[in-house]
Amino acid sequence: MARSDVKLIGAWASPFVMRARIALNIKSVGYDFLEETLGSKSQLLLESNPVHKKIPVMIHDGKAICESLVIVEYIDEVWSSGPTILPSDPYDCALARFWAAYLDEKWFPTVRSIATAKEEEAPKALIEQVGEGVMMLGEGVMMLEDAFSRCSKGKGFFGGDQIGYLDIAFGSFLGRLRAIEKMNGVKLIDETKTPSLLKWATSFSSHPAVKDVLPETEKLVELAKVLAKFRAASSNS
Amino acid sequence: MARSDVKLIGAWASPFVMRARIALNIKSVGYDFLEETLGSKSQLLLESNPVHKKIPVMIHDGKAICESLVIVEYIDEVWSSGPTILPSDPYDCALARFWAAYLDEKWFPTVRSIATAKEEEAPKALIEQVGEGVMMLGEGVMMLEDAFSRCSKGKGFFGGDQIGYLDIAFGSFLGRLRAIEKMNGVKLIDETKTPSLLKWATSFSSHPAVKDVLPETEKLVELAKVLAKFRAASSNS
Repeated sequence: MARSDVKLIGAWASPFVMRARIALNIKSVGYDFLEETLGSKSQLLLESNPVHKKIPVMIHDGKAICESLVIVEYIDEVWSSGPTILPSDPYDCALARFWAAYLDEKWFPTVRSIATAKEEEAPKALIEQVGEGVMMLGEGVMMLEDAFSRCSKGKGFFGGDQIGYLDIAFGSFLGRLRAIEKMNGVKLIDETKTPSLLKWATSFSSHPAVKDVLPETEKLVELAKVLAKFRAASSNS
Repeated sequence: MARSDVKLIGAWASPFVMRARIALNIKSVGYDFLEETLGSKSQLLLESNPVHKKIPVMIHDGKAICESLVIVEYIDEVWSSGPTILPSDPYDCALARFWAAYLDEKWFPTVRSIATAKEEEAPKALIEQVGEGVMMLGEGVMMLEDAFSRCSKGKGFFGGDQIGYLDIAFGSFLGRLRAIEKMNGVKLIDETKTPSLLKWATSFSSHPAVKDVLPETEKLVELAKVLAKFRAASSNS
């Protein structure tokens, strides 16, 4: 494994941090993983990303790179020690970037808002909001099933034969999706409506660059419960 | 001027459309500009961008490319008939992409919310909201003044000697900023706080690839008044 002066400030459960980790794994780049503690921000994080103060931040040769998709593109441009991540054809590249932007702009806010435990005592408005969110994610998954056939061109990944940019951008949410499925008793990716994505999700999750960084669903469900209690306590105080 | 089968669906006042137009001008690529009408969406737009139904959409050899920054990257990758738009150094590239994402995520929602005419009869809450928005933009401009010195390396543009990705991403808002300055009697870019940006704004606005597509401030102020009336009528009906 190529060793380089790379540090990644992150947290195990963050899909955005996972993107950087998968990209580094694809390129076989070793790195120091500096985990942030829930509820506080390290001095290094605050200094390295003064604008957003958010993870992930990758520090390479002393320079800080922020924003998960920017980091993935940087990794692809800097290291040639593995398959390329961005498609080589400009139109395929535009498609991958388009869907990645869709995920972050439209999809993630919904994932975040409903990825909390469904409490028995939850107010009616919250239950309705979760219901609408799950439905919206279902529609999004259907669009991505359609995008998959256009991007993969009959191969196993959005990137074709290899995991690429959109695999990373979407695949990093797989853990969250599975946690949402479990907590809400629904199936978002299934054999009937999204057979290609179901197959893709299995291949993606077991890929050598992914399997050790994709969190277990059960752990994410537990975390969601902790966060829900944390939020409830904050809003009652 | 290189002629290619390029159509751009847009509107003269949209900063996002302007990005695509500037990038095409930099590469000397001719295109048909298909203007959308305020308040309606053409069938071509709905078919070409079914996910967001928004301008700009560029159609190149029958393929639709959506999202302004994705379009700019596509143009840079497809045409070598002009200077490159993205920096060649990966770290410079990451910096430019970071700030472009900042502008779209954090900056534009504020620009849009306050870029309406300041009516005498505006409710107090709206006046306060505009005041806060203007202050937030002022802080953003200061950060960009700082980013300019890091990106330009003593040259005239964020991209160095030539207009680049971040020049396009930020410069496309210049018209809106000037309209906001005029409507609110403030100076966001000035000699005291942001001397580098003031000089940059002048060079950018008069650049051959920009000057014919950057809308006049007066026309944007007029448009803002029309939109404010349109919104007020909609909310009263």
